[in-house]
Amino acid sequence: MAIRLQRPSLVIVDVQNAIDDKRWGPRNNANAELVISDLLTAWRSHELPVMHIRHDSTDPDSAYRPGQQGNDFKLIAMPAAGEPVIAKTTNSAFIGTDLADRLRQLGGDVVFAGVITNNSIEATVRMSGNLGFSSFVAADGCWTVDKTDLNGRLWLAEEVHALSLANLHEEYATVSNSADIIAALPAALEP
Amino acid sequence: MAIRLQRPSLVIVDVQNAIDDKRWGPRNNANAELVISDLLTAWRSHELPVMHIRHDSTDPDSAYRPGQQGNDFKLIAMPAAGEPVIAKTTNSAFIGTDLADRLRQLGGDVVFAGVITNNSIEATVRMSGNLGFSSFVAADGCWTVDKTDLNGRLWLAEEVHALSLANLHEEYATVSNSADIIAALPAALEP
Repeated sequence: MAIRLQRPSLVIVDVQNAIDDKRWGPRNNANAELVISDLLTAWRSHELPVMHIRHDSTDPDSAYRPGQQGNDFKLIAMPAAGEPVIAKTTNSAFIGTDLADRLRQLGGDVVFAGVITNNSIEATVRMSGNLGFSSFVAADGCWTVDKTDLNGRLWLAEEVHALSLANLHEEYATVSNSADIIAALPAALEP
Repeated sequence: MAIRLQRPSLVIVDVQNAIDDKRWGPRNNANAELVISDLLTAWRSHELPVMHIRHDSTDPDSAYRPGQQGNDFKLIAMPAAGEPVIAKTTNSAFIGTDLADRLRQLGGDVVFAGVITNNSIEATVRMSGNLGFSSFVAADGCWTVDKTDLNGRLWLAEEVHALSLANLHEEYATVSNSADIIAALPAALEP
């Protein structure tokens, strides 16, 4: 479905080597890294703002903890020179960071992609919408993993992903896909 | 499962007449209002802090909009004299309110109940955990409604509720039930 964007910032969340740790279990959207790469290429070619959220876990057992290779960005999502890297220690990229200030200063819409859909993406996008930012999610540029609920029922990554996006859509953000988002960029360049 | 609490505040979210609007569709936890009443009785009898979040919708079509009966608290969740009422206009009770300041000043844990699980409860509890508050959810004191995802799949309220609580548990909060929470109160009175 065609969407309209206004000078959107692209915010890539937690796409670090740690997300490939086998302990996460099965994931969905095997293609999401390529989608993120396409989004980055499109944003850079239009000279629109790109920001990278880096999760610096304080959990000694986490592969996201700083000081290990897991904390480094995946090659496909490596920040280019001049693109801000915003470190966070909680799920939401708005807590303990200057992300809200940066987005207010930039003034346009914001498009999110990254991991995992129902955790840092959802926590960040809920806050983005509630803080008043016109927010979008590239559904195919996000992924998550299987989840067992408190009744012991196993939910497949694809199901967890679908319900997480349903929670976000039209309440906190517009959930779209990378093709429609990239198609909207040429018309989105006016301030 | 037994839990330990320390001088917890009880925060009841959005339990207003508007939640009975037929447009919401089928819900789960038909007993949740009685659970909330039990929680309120227990908190008041132990003279622990109670706060009421009131959703003042800015949507002209919402039953939660101020100036109609839907905006009033349900009788079973009516604030008692001296209990603060905190008005919000977004999903998260921490956005545009002094809830975080109040909880910091009180210093203890925080227990949440109310509606709807995957929207204002989840948005609020995610922020509560990320802001550093030791947070608990009374699972049987919350409810939600059926939800159709972006692929057209209908999820029953009970399923939406279960996955929402699974997202919160051990990542943002401890999800428990009212009986275990109330049982923990006598030992929770020390400062």
